[in-house]
Amino acid sequence: AYEKMPRSVHGLEGAGEWHAFRSVLPDMRGKQVLDLGCGFGWHCRYAREQQARSVTGVDISANMLGKARELTNDPAISYVQSAIEDVQFPECSFDLVLSSLAFHYIDDFEEVCRKVHQFLEKEGRFVFSVEHPIFTSCSEQDWHYDGQGNRLHWPIDHYQSEGRRDTAFLTPNVIKYHRTVSTYMNTMIHAGFRIDAVIEPMPSDEMLRQHPEMKEELRRPMFLIIAASKNRV
Amino acid sequence: AYEKMPRSVHGLEGAGEWHAFRSVLPDMRGKQVLDLGCGFGWHCRYAREQQARSVTGVDISANMLGKARELTNDPAISYVQSAIEDVQFPECSFDLVLSSLAFHYIDDFEEVCRKVHQFLEKEGRFVFSVEHPIFTSCSEQDWHYDGQGNRLHWPIDHYQSEGRRDTAFLTPNVIKYHRTVSTYMNTMIHAGFRIDAVIEPMPSDEMLRQHPEMKEELRRPMFLIIAASKNRV
Repeated sequence: AYEKMPRSVHGLEGAGEWHAFRSVLPDMRGKQVLDLGCGFGWHCRYAREQQARSVTGVDISANMLGKARELTNDPAISYVQSAIEDVQFPECSFDLVLSSLAFHYIDDFEEVCRKVHQFLEKEGRFVFSVEHPIFTSCSEQDWHYDGQGNRLHWPIDHYQSEGRRDTAFLTPNVIKYHRTVSTYMNTMIHAGFRIDAVIEPMPSDEMLRQHPEMKEELRRPMFLIIAASKNRV
Repeated sequence: AYEKMPRSVHGLEGAGEWHAFRSVLPDMRGKQVLDLGCGFGWHCRYAREQQARSVTGVDISANMLGKARELTNDPAISYVQSAIEDVQFPECSFDLVLSSLAFHYIDDFEEVCRKVHQFLEKEGRFVFSVEHPIFTSCSEQDWHYDGQGNRLHWPIDHYQSEGRRDTAFLTPNVIKYHRTVSTYMNTMIHAGFRIDAVIEPMPSDEMLRQHPEMKEELRRPMFLIIAASKNRV
């Protein structure tokens, strides 16, 4: 199912939030970049197009990494198979750690922040997207409809009950982890990050022109993007 | 109607989010404190109990300030009648600016942040609460019920459409302004603040024991509290 999503077929330009994610990425020229949850490697290859010196992509899925390697012909990109929370690198190995729509599959976000902080150089940057807490609070992850099938609104419930959600996104039995907005923020701050920007992406005007049905995305945020820096010591 | 709310009758202890708000207030001993939207002056008097040197309370309502003055017998507390966005003070006049549940009545949050930043001493602190964007997105500001009057969930809609909401909170025709979480954050960051903590308050265990019906508050966040510091230059 994942392979058939626009983002899988068309790469980054097929992802509705890409214009927003890209807008908070720092200049990557000459930088060492780590991509946590790299999937098919689209962000890894983008980083090299932006003249990153080297890129490491981490993913738990051998299948995804196989496809990523097929799509990649660049010795400066390396792929590592590992769970995000188990990955090991020397301290200060990277200038930028990015992650696209992976951390809502991870139970222990505190450990992720601790590791990313350790892996980053002084003044290093950390940019990631997740499914928005408004989107993950209910396991159903769907609109509330009237009897005629019209979307009435987006339902929120169990917001303060963080933890596992058994969802059926694309395929049945996908386990996600709901965290509140404040938990995302405070966990980063406690790990030593300074919050630089917070984005709840909207479709661009061009996307709304090409895909008028995307105006539904203005009714509730689907994604949360946070850009942060390792604090000066 | 406002006068009959528990927070109006019992002061700060009657406010469900007070324990959370208090937890992010800095030490106020010897500090000069500004309270924007001070209402009956509960936070002003609290600041003096915490040994603030002086406190200025600002509110647009002559009625509220009249009641605040009645309740206050302390020459180190002064009250100023003004709209929050019009208030004028010399630069660096305060060590702490606080505001409780006032800014969602203000259209121009950017101007508020600009002024607060100007009023604050270097390293000054800014702590405020607002109605949560999840709470302000729909004008109805109410649960979605089934035919039997059971609360099914909290509805979200129009989240990305910031601006005026004509609500009927306590009295009819109360104008509020919806802003997204990201707008609150980014407006502060752009004004020169560092985000120190973000809280989506929950009832304390003691409150849940005394008022079991408050467990409904765990289903969606009603308030957002942000604590920030004026950046080192």
